[in-house]
Amino acid sequence: MYRTHTCGALNIKNLKESVTLSGWIQTIRDKGFMIYIDLRDRYGITQLILDETRTPKELMEKARKLGREFVVQVKGEVIERESKNPKNPTGEIEILVSDITTLNTSQTPPFTIEDKTDGGEELRMKYRYLDIRRNPVKNNLIFRSKVAQIIRNYLSSEEFIEVETPYLIKSTPEGARDFVVPSRMNEKQFYALPQSPQTFKQLLMVGGLDKYFQIVKCFRDEDLRADRQPEFTQVDCEMSFVEQEDILNVFENLTKHILKEIKGIEIDTFPRITYDYAMKTYGNDKPDIRFGMKFHELNELMKGEGFPVFDNAELVVGINVENSANYTRKQIDALTNFVKTPQVGASGLVYIKYNEDSSIKSSVDKFYSPEKLKQVCDEFNANPGDLILILCGETNKVRTQLSMLRMELAEQLNLRNPKEFAPLWVVDFPLLEWDEETKRYHAMHHPFTAPKPEDISLLTDKPEQVRANAYDLVLNGNEIGGGSVRIYDKDIQAQMFDLLGFSKEEAENQFGFLMNAFKYGAPPHAGIAFGFDRLVSILGGQETIRDFIAFPKNNSGRDVMIDAPAYISEEQLEELNIKLK
Amino acid sequence: MYRTHTCGALNIKNLKESVTLSGWIQTIRDKGFMIYIDLRDRYGITQLILDETRTPKELMEKARKLGREFVVQVKGEVIERESKNPKNPTGEIEILVSDITTLNTSQTPPFTIEDKTDGGEELRMKYRYLDIRRNPVKNNLIFRSKVAQIIRNYLSSEEFIEVETPYLIKSTPEGARDFVVPSRMNEKQFYALPQSPQTFKQLLMVGGLDKYFQIVKCFRDEDLRADRQPEFTQVDCEMSFVEQEDILNVFENLTKHILKEIKGIEIDTFPRITYDYAMKTYGNDKPDIRFGMKFHELNELMKGEGFPVFDNAELVVGINVENSANYTRKQIDALTNFVKTPQVGASGLVYIKYNEDSSIKSSVDKFYSPEKLKQVCDEFNANPGDLILILCGETNKVRTQLSMLRMELAEQLNLRNPKEFAPLWVVDFPLLEWDEETKRYHAMHHPFTAPKPEDISLLTDKPEQVRANAYDLVLNGNEIGGGSVRIYDKDIQAQMFDLLGFSKEEAENQFGFLMNAFKYGAPPHAGIAFGFDRLVSILGGQETIRDFIAFPKNNSGRDVMIDAPAYISEEQLEELNIKLK
Repeated sequence: MYRTHTCGALNIKNLKESVTLSGWIQTIRDKGFMIYIDLRDRYGITQLILDETRTPKELMEKARKLGREFVVQVKGEVIERESKNPKNPTGEIEILVSDITTLNTSQTPPFTIEDKTDGGEELRMKYRYLDIRRNPVKNNLIFRSKVAQIIRNYLSSEEFIEVETPYLIKSTPEGARDFVVPSRMNEKQFYALPQSPQTFKQLLMVGGLDKYFQIVKCFRDEDLRADRQPEFTQVDCEMSFVEQEDILNVFENLTKHILKEIKGIEIDTFPRITYDYAMKTYGNDKPDIRFGMKFHELNELMKGEGFPVFDNAELVVGINVENSANYTRKQIDALTNFVKTPQVGASGLVYIKYNEDSSIKSSVDKFYSPEKLKQVCDEFNANPGDLILILCGETNKVRTQLSMLRMELAEQLNLRNPKEFAPLWVVDFPLLEWDEETKRYHAMHHPFTAPKPEDISLLTDKPEQVRANAYDLVLNGNEIGGGSVRIYDKDIQAQMFDLLGFSKEEAENQFGFLMNAFKYGAPPHAGIAFGFDRLVSILGGQETIRDFIAFPKNNSGRDVMIDAPAYISEEQLEELNIKLK
Repeated sequence: MYRTHTCGALNIKNLKESVTLSGWIQTIRDKGFMIYIDLRDRYGITQLILDETRTPKELMEKARKLGREFVVQVKGEVIERESKNPKNPTGEIEILVSDITTLNTSQTPPFTIEDKTDGGEELRMKYRYLDIRRNPVKNNLIFRSKVAQIIRNYLSSEEFIEVETPYLIKSTPEGARDFVVPSRMNEKQFYALPQSPQTFKQLLMVGGLDKYFQIVKCFRDEDLRADRQPEFTQVDCEMSFVEQEDILNVFENLTKHILKEIKGIEIDTFPRITYDYAMKTYGNDKPDIRFGMKFHELNELMKGEGFPVFDNAELVVGINVENSANYTRKQIDALTNFVKTPQVGASGLVYIKYNEDSSIKSSVDKFYSPEKLKQVCDEFNANPGDLILILCGETNKVRTQLSMLRMELAEQLNLRNPKEFAPLWVVDFPLLEWDEETKRYHAMHHPFTAPKPEDISLLTDKPEQVRANAYDLVLNGNEIGGGSVRIYDKDIQAQMFDLLGFSKEEAENQFGFLMNAFKYGAPPHAGIAFGFDRLVSILGGQETIRDFIAFPKNNSGRDVMIDAPAYISEEQLEELNIKLK
């Protein structure tokens, strides 16, 4: 037996006990006549002590030869500490060492195993197994495991069945690029790794399983933007004989349950807004509503007053930054520069300072009377001390630009409190979006999403106006889940494939099994999927999913620790009947 | 809302309630003046009734147009049945229908949706979504979900952390063939799908995580034997600062917990036998111990008595088939034919009947005196009425042959009771096995398995004699789990790679990251993995894993439902920089 207790277990109640601990050496402080060692394992740190009066000389010498991250087994007696450390659960005691066995040595690690390490991202990824020894990473992984378990238990208690769907499936060109797997036994054919278990969970509904969930890896061979992973984890759910309202209720309750269990936070009914409202009010379909700064459209107030920039713009729209009229010229210039950066792309920024003394100062004083500017302030219900910022341009673009400005200001003003959680539903997404490049419609959610029944008549003539029974769950400015009511009628599904530009053959070839299944009594069904990596990182108060993944890949899709992907042998290629180009 | 209750929920307590149900039409019995409909969903079957006296004519006509597997929503009142069905939880009531809405129609399904269906395996797999509607398949999937949840909750309560390890890793030629995934972003390079998370879980131990588990898909591109799947599910576990004894205890307790929760069976300490004992006594390293028929070696008693077949054999070995002396000539001939089939491969079978009247009759009467034969019977502690069956040949081969005979007899005699559960541990496996074909040693478990400390000195000279700290958990004649104490010393690991014929470069290239990790304080660690598909099927009283997998593949690795694998487009191949040969 390697240990009687973990390094987080002992306290004043264990005084005088003979114990055996095992762990890693965090630090050694050699005071000459006394040696202190911090011994660490997953559960905590326990202080070991050796001193000249009570410890044999050979043992002192042995201890002096130990180094950082050596793995040791220690026997000793629990004694009370002279100077206690109330921050550490084991801080009232220490172990008077009677024996030390070195279980393994260690080279000096390439970075310090401390909460604040000196290791850069790249080094930490290469030695991820050492990085995981650090509390922040270790605790993230434990946290992730706990959230998964809470979700599983909740859904199981609600009679959801966890079903494992296959990983070796069929490539479907719709949507993102698939990872493919050459089949040795089926010459020249390929499996694909699933981008999601979408069609399988729908087939489970056709199979009558009624309530399905799965926490499952999904795969997308995308060019990786920051904080995207080629393999990611989804909490995937589907229900039969439900409408949108049922899904929203069930998964709102799940989310409330998680927030309560994990954060001790009780949240009342989640707000629901439409996609149109979200775009108009936040310029964004995943608004962070922990703070205000809602958009106000100013066409009526500010156009036609002789300011040509606004007069020529499709939309003039602004936000009220409360208590910020004291922004200096320099600060305003910095914001102007921000909106003019290529990634935002605005041509300029107009401000109206509603000063504490109720005077008004604006960058467009020339064009607008003080009364007019006061009217604008009133439109925002602004108070003295507030700052109004205005952009203009083409509707969609200016909304996106103002949304970025709003988020930037929230960061600057510390309005994005990581301890506050503000979920909301965004509903009534458009069914389709027009792709200028390919000159065809794409499914905004996916091709299996049902149009709103009242909009079905528009499908033929005005498809762009058709709203979907699709919904997103947004938390603190991040989409953490999304789903839809599904089409379960084979004719509407065929019409949908047609709208999306699939030929009959393509639809049959790729989704024939689903269309076929719909011939045998498909029930009404709907579902949702949560991005588990994202969910966990937001619950953890962070926004980098990589910190919550044990072995993440870098932006080139590489695992730098194991050095994958890698070349494979000629024999392997031969067996798979493929050649490199 | 599609329903107020499920089809399994209503009973006599709900009398007179107005309810709405949704489900599939199982049967319609049209008696002219009365129509009975069985409505089915995941939860059960509820009987609907329409009759001339209480139902509007139009509704009767509408009901007559419904067909099997139509999806309908029904409104009505709960009434008491005239003739109750005590076997069905809803059997005391029926629904007097007031409205029916057809939610979806159905073609006639290709096989009947009944517990005993008329559909063959192939048809059922093609229409798996219909097969899943059948109780046996549906219940298997629910059962699987339940077992997974029990395992997760148990391990979580024991402070195990579930960590998701990556699916896109690196190909390692050791062991079975990998499935590979061409990387688009890393030209000419490939990921591999994991055969198990072995190295990652060891790295998690190096990372200090201490207790890890994961229920995870694994992949092997093997030529598929019956009842093997290219993707399969493993319950994968690893612990630090443990010895073999700790692992056996923890996972024996897990197994007991599962058996108790799932089957209500309490089992005392599991027996432990060594690999050597298992081979000598059962001819098999995964013995079914629900029944006896232990091997007895008869070289001393039966060789050198003038029966040349035995005299020339390396091993003479037999079993006692209790109460079977009344086997007829025909039955014995059938057994003889069985052992002579190519898959068994014995050259003949010797019997000794110890008759009820204490007389002895044997196929080798000519060569052995009645006293000698009685001595053989005594060796087996046989009683009058028992039948002794003996094979001979080369030790390893004859053991395997006799093991097959033992299992065949157990089947014939119904000794393999699916409701009985007899787990045991097999320990002390050999570290290595010699492969005649490649003229080198293979790791019997895997290359990371630790030799027994007392056998390490044999590593250089007599590697075949080295025993491993490796163990299997066997249940009812199936290996359901296996694992080992791992090497955590980089020098022993290097020696092991050397023994297995890896060059330094190969070892470095394939497992460099692990060898490197071992330089930074690897703790002693050990683990186990359970074959989850197998475990669930055995707990379910069956031995076909396919019945417990939602969407299994056939023996050619094909999913016949979605028709995968499939050809992919030239563009896809182009992007991946590969060509078909």
